[in-house]
Amino acid sequence: MNQEIPYKIYLEESELPTAWYNVRADMKKKPAPLLNPATFQPMTAEELGTVFCEELVKQELDDTTAYIEIPREIRDFYKMYRPSPLVRAYCLEEKLQTPAKIYYKFEGNNTSGSHKLNSAIAQAYYAKKQGLKGVTTETGAGQWGTALSMACAYLGLDCKVYIVKCSYEQKPFRREVMRTYGAAVTPSPSDTTEIGRKILKEHPGTTGSLGCAISEAVEVATHTEGYRYVLGSVLNQVLLHQSVIGLETKTAMDKYGIQPDIIIGCAGGGSNLGGLISPFMGEMLRGEKKYQFIAVEPASCPSLTRGKYAYDYCDTGMVTPLQKMYTLGSGFIPSANHAGGLRYHGMSAVLSELYDQGLMEARAVEQTSVFEAAEYFARVEGILPAPESSHAIKVAIDEAKKCKETGEEKTILFGLTGTGYFDMVAYEKYNNGEMTDYIPTDEDLKAGFDGLPKVPDNR
Amino acid sequence: MNQEIPYKIYLEESELPTAWYNVRADMKKKPAPLLNPATFQPMTAEELGTVFCEELVKQELDDTTAYIEIPREIRDFYKMYRPSPLVRAYCLEEKLQTPAKIYYKFEGNNTSGSHKLNSAIAQAYYAKKQGLKGVTTETGAGQWGTALSMACAYLGLDCKVYIVKCSYEQKPFRREVMRTYGAAVTPSPSDTTEIGRKILKEHPGTTGSLGCAISEAVEVATHTEGYRYVLGSVLNQVLLHQSVIGLETKTAMDKYGIQPDIIIGCAGGGSNLGGLISPFMGEMLRGEKKYQFIAVEPASCPSLTRGKYAYDYCDTGMVTPLQKMYTLGSGFIPSANHAGGLRYHGMSAVLSELYDQGLMEARAVEQTSVFEAAEYFARVEGILPAPESSHAIKVAIDEAKKCKETGEEKTILFGLTGTGYFDMVAYEKYNNGEMTDYIPTDEDLKAGFDGLPKVPDNR
Repeated sequence: MNQEIPYKIYLEESELPTAWYNVRADMKKKPAPLLNPATFQPMTAEELGTVFCEELVKQELDDTTAYIEIPREIRDFYKMYRPSPLVRAYCLEEKLQTPAKIYYKFEGNNTSGSHKLNSAIAQAYYAKKQGLKGVTTETGAGQWGTALSMACAYLGLDCKVYIVKCSYEQKPFRREVMRTYGAAVTPSPSDTTEIGRKILKEHPGTTGSLGCAISEAVEVATHTEGYRYVLGSVLNQVLLHQSVIGLETKTAMDKYGIQPDIIIGCAGGGSNLGGLISPFMGEMLRGEKKYQFIAVEPASCPSLTRGKYAYDYCDTGMVTPLQKMYTLGSGFIPSANHAGGLRYHGMSAVLSELYDQGLMEARAVEQTSVFEAAEYFARVEGILPAPESSHAIKVAIDEAKKCKETGEEKTILFGLTGTGYFDMVAYEKYNNGEMTDYIPTDEDLKAGFDGLPKVPDNR
Repeated sequence: MNQEIPYKIYLEESELPTAWYNVRADMKKKPAPLLNPATFQPMTAEELGTVFCEELVKQELDDTTAYIEIPREIRDFYKMYRPSPLVRAYCLEEKLQTPAKIYYKFEGNNTSGSHKLNSAIAQAYYAKKQGLKGVTTETGAGQWGTALSMACAYLGLDCKVYIVKCSYEQKPFRREVMRTYGAAVTPSPSDTTEIGRKILKEHPGTTGSLGCAISEAVEVATHTEGYRYVLGSVLNQVLLHQSVIGLETKTAMDKYGIQPDIIIGCAGGGSNLGGLISPFMGEMLRGEKKYQFIAVEPASCPSLTRGKYAYDYCDTGMVTPLQKMYTLGSGFIPSANHAGGLRYHGMSAVLSELYDQGLMEARAVEQTSVFEAAEYFARVEGILPAPESSHAIKVAIDEAKKCKETGEEKTILFGLTGTGYFDMVAYEKYNNGEMTDYIPTDEDLKAGFDGLPKVPDNR
């Protein structure tokens, strides 16, 4: 019946977005400003400019310009791996025997294996344009570090990646991909920074943490001439760049007259979800259309479903500005969930504000059920998904099953952010029946909340 | 100037081939028939039917039908990951400062990571259609085993993969992908077969070989009710299925008025090269057009450039029929080259015959130069290539550099068969400067030639 819609919708290169969409411009109540942790005053462009590139600071602070042009050089890079396909999941629909129509935007068809490349090239480009020598960053699961290495190799920019020590050791292949792209990869904590040496002295056997890696990357950026720090999620600028996902999706859907009812994405820091929903959320904010948005997070790290909306540090090392967001507290240590990209205590300020306004729902799911959905999906649709992306798959399948019960022909759209080729240790655990679930108790969460900074605005 | 040609040409689903092209139909001198090793008489369909599915036996023996319809079910599966993009390597051209125009057909955008899926789904489909319960196969590098697992999971067919023991241990992630798709993966030699038990008794510490894995897979297929054996390369049927690569490429090129001068592919058993060049070779055989075809093989396993054109076993275990092909002898043990997919002593009968007739060239390249080209390509074009595919990249770059010297504006087309995400051990060796080259001496080769079967036709 719907066979006129192909399995995969690829836009023409001429249909690619020429500007990113900034959803903040359409928000009546804007996300709260970043605060200086010493003064509790809004961070100025000058203050942010010591850490980030000038152009990116502008994008970070701009909450009124709806469309920001994508420079031609970035558009050319995008053409090497974009447009990404919008896939009609015919096989999944048939297998589920659901009247629902299921679509997913697949961002995994590039060597970084995820959507992270969309922002990596933008951030590297502005660094290069500013005449910088290089950038520093941290990576946990390794997708962001890989994406940044690729972008820097393309532009001839130096790239220093601090990778959490346990990832460095457990994921040697991720490390090698980054090295192949010429990045300097250092396990964190390391003796290359003051904070690293301090931590190593205090905790000699530590396997590191994302918070510590951020602190090291920021220290190197701010103490080395010609370097700036870049970040793969959470920030407004990252959501802006990732809007390319949603813009392409919307163009493809409009072209075929497809109208989604439910839009689903996994949410760690929020980069993919924010990017996917932005243009659709814009329509809803302007009162043009209505959609049901669902953020999916791991039950082991439930920042939206069980967190507090408060000012908090973006990192565990407490070196970053304060951001108002749904958070479990920067001191909250998430359990060893296999979706490393979702193990973050906070959430994008934009998404937090939209969620607080009731414009978006959130669901927390347990990882064994996520891997069950992942394997089911892989066998039916042929793509082995990343553990992060599989959170969205799980809820998309749940919603499609509901449609089977009610007979509703809803159109479900979800973001398939990446592939799981470097996550086979997790799949092995699942295949061997050794995977466990963990849900923090209220007591576990209390410790994180107790550590929230004493900002006047925090109730 | 050529900017009207996009970075990536994607065909519409309606433009996908509806029939495979059988290049043997246009060959005046056909490839020699398979021989029964006991009688030296051509293998009959009945004899082949004990090992292979009926429909595949027909395809194996049919050297007169030019176009064979692709069943709708296979076309539907193809739509999940095809058309694959034909990429214009604008960035590579610019980096090389060459007047050459470079295109590559990229087959790596699917979870199996290579073109192998094109034949896997076809072979699994015919097995299912014949009412079989399952199929058996062997895998070395793991790409074929992964592809077959995916196809069998999709069709609900049982899949038993014998994987060379050293690969099973060194590439646990490949193994896990296959398990995730529901395949039973057994390290070879194993105690599940007579031949496996025999080899284990004679060589207790052995880490296995592809030849032994083939022998085990064939034994299980022929001794288990409802099972047949399938193979990922070398056979005529595999080249037939892989013609989908060349057919798509030709349609895309014709659409944009692109005329290749040189067509390059890596060659192990010949499946990708044969598939890519088939329709172009057909034009040349029919006297319509002229192309320069180049097969690229590893210097460590130089079956075309230094082998003999003779009847030989397809496996080291000497259980298969005899095929006339360029071979180093089934007893030749290739050194531990990292392009596992190219470590094969022989070559497709079709390609061997075309090469013997002077219709195709061959070049042998050393692996350190191949990885140098691979890393260069990855940084410029953004795709981390498989070691096998990188052999074609190496020669494509060489040819583009020649054009720079001569000023010729040649159009170069090569096959990028897959991605290197499961080959990071090899990249690590290269990055650490620990990779070495090996070229067999004439003495090394003599041993292999001495073991060739005493078929009357062998000179």
